[in-house]
Amino acid sequence: MIALDANGADNGAATVAAGGRESGVPVTIFGPQAEIPAPHDDVVDAPVAITNDDEPARAVRARPDSSLVQATKAVKEGRAQAVVSAGPTGALMASATLHLKRMKGVHRPAAAVLLPVPGSPTLLLDSGANLDVRTDYLVQFAYMGSVFMEAVHGVARPRVGLLSNGHEPKKGVPQVVEANERLAAGPLNFVGNVEGGDIVSGELDVVVTDGFTGNVALKAVEGTAKMVGSIVRRAARSSPPAALGGLLMSRKLGQLRHELSQDNVGGGIMLGLRGVTVAAHGSASATGIANAVRLAQRAVDERMIERTEAALRDAGALRTSEPAISLAGTDD
Amino acid sequence: MIALDANGADNGAATVAAGGRESGVPVTIFGPQAEIPAPHDDVVDAPVAITNDDEPARAVRARPDSSLVQATKAVKEGRAQAVVSAGPTGALMASATLHLKRMKGVHRPAAAVLLPVPGSPTLLLDSGANLDVRTDYLVQFAYMGSVFMEAVHGVARPRVGLLSNGHEPKKGVPQVVEANERLAAGPLNFVGNVEGGDIVSGELDVVVTDGFTGNVALKAVEGTAKMVGSIVRRAARSSPPAALGGLLMSRKLGQLRHELSQDNVGGGIMLGLRGVTVAAHGSASATGIANAVRLAQRAVDERMIERTEAALRDAGALRTSEPAISLAGTDD
Repeated sequence: MIALDANGADNGAATVAAGGRESGVPVTIFGPQAEIPAPHDDVVDAPVAITNDDEPARAVRARPDSSLVQATKAVKEGRAQAVVSAGPTGALMASATLHLKRMKGVHRPAAAVLLPVPGSPTLLLDSGANLDVRTDYLVQFAYMGSVFMEAVHGVARPRVGLLSNGHEPKKGVPQVVEANERLAAGPLNFVGNVEGGDIVSGELDVVVTDGFTGNVALKAVEGTAKMVGSIVRRAARSSPPAALGGLLMSRKLGQLRHELSQDNVGGGIMLGLRGVTVAAHGSASATGIANAVRLAQRAVDERMIERTEAALRDAGALRTSEPAISLAGTDD
Repeated sequence: MIALDANGADNGAATVAAGGRESGVPVTIFGPQAEIPAPHDDVVDAPVAITNDDEPARAVRARPDSSLVQATKAVKEGRAQAVVSAGPTGALMASATLHLKRMKGVHRPAAAVLLPVPGSPTLLLDSGANLDVRTDYLVQFAYMGSVFMEAVHGVARPRVGLLSNGHEPKKGVPQVVEANERLAAGPLNFVGNVEGGDIVSGELDVVVTDGFTGNVALKAVEGTAKMVGSIVRRAARSSPPAALGGLLMSRKLGQLRHELSQDNVGGGIMLGLRGVTVAAHGSASATGIANAVRLAQRAVDERMIERTEAALRDAGALRTSEPAISLAGTDD
């Protein structure tokens, strides 16, 4: 059973509900029942929403009756195995961190997005949850991303890059330069600093960055792919010989559009938490929501949480000053 | 006369020299004469280079005989009107800041790149010169970018956006949230926070950000455009009907590739300095270098420096604590 938050999506609660229902996965929909087509036996009426205008952590604490918090609590209390939302990513992260908790030894959970780079999907993290990051966070993001691609997507020795403004190890803001040094000295398959263009090169499995840069880069990639695609289609219609060419190519272009669509990969996943938490794209279609629900179910079936935790532990990538082993008993 | 630094370009000094010579603009080429085809009457032999591995400010001070510093000094001493380099942007900025100086009242010069968004070119700044920025810098970048597009590119009331991880005014790291407040209260045609995808929407004339995010975003846009273009070409060749379509569309695709190429706009321009300084793309072809040289000449012809300075002053966007009016006499 997947707990599906129907509030906060660009296309409304009815689209989210339709996506959940067409996923083929059992869902409980938390949202405004009045906006969701009957039958309502899979709906928990929860009209209260958390929006992009709210300060995430405060809103999550102040509105226990919101659809997002109710859906998260369904996971916490064992009534559901994972939570999916197309609402504000910050609020989802805050709710999951508050109610599901982060894994022991993880500094900050990260929002990761699997980018549909044709041929070699690439995981980008953080994609918007942690705007300001310390060196420690970046290093841990690298381990969490690598483990995720290895455990859930079956990639052997994932190639990990650190996003910066140049390939040279000394390029970047101080925390990036420091993270580069630490990752280069560690056991990951670390290729070093990478640039914005490398995200879509198909030569990387994981790209690590802070949530501000990651969000900008993710949307720049999506926006550019869309822009170029629409220019190609316009060019295809603009003159008789090109129009014929465009007609003949239209199926190919449709495939490409599908391959590059976020709807295709189901959105983002929060790494470093004790419960499976999936952020569907805010503008997801019903198909995008269905894929997000299926991604959540796959993570449950693949025991992603346990495998990620085990692999982080095995890699020695957990925070070293754990309360259990620290005499001072300080936590972070 | 344009001073052209031939060192540091990905395609070598001969390509830079060829570009300068085909620009139709009088140039003096500063670089390794042994690598540049004769005749050498337009060459000043200057084999010493500053590379991406050097710390920019230190290298510029330590190597007065480098081609870059010699080219910059030619402008300072009135033997040339502008400097163009395809070498490391940081070194160019450091050399120009040291020898040409920034405009009075400008906190930090910015590297700006005119992105070839079809239909509506968009100026992105900072594209890599200032990795860490204060609120004041971002605000000034917005004014400098707006003035540049108005004065040199003839755009009336340029639409200015502030790059962030969401459109809402409260989204972003603290300096972005503060800059949004200040710009919204000012006289610019400020559209508010914009996301990575908006850079290529054709709905903005200026996008303001820090140099780290700007560099990542710029390269993400370029890399994605290239990736999608190459997929379309591959798709066009992959099956007989599509191949026919692709053949018929090939001229259109070639046009598109040309439109989206950085070679087409000649690279970046440094704003906020007292001399015209153009950064050609590191991987520029001879054509790209030629366009960079022509861009520099146009900025000279259009009196960009004087008009930018005047417009900044008129907009009240200069630093307020000028030595001339401050009793304490502190500068910055």
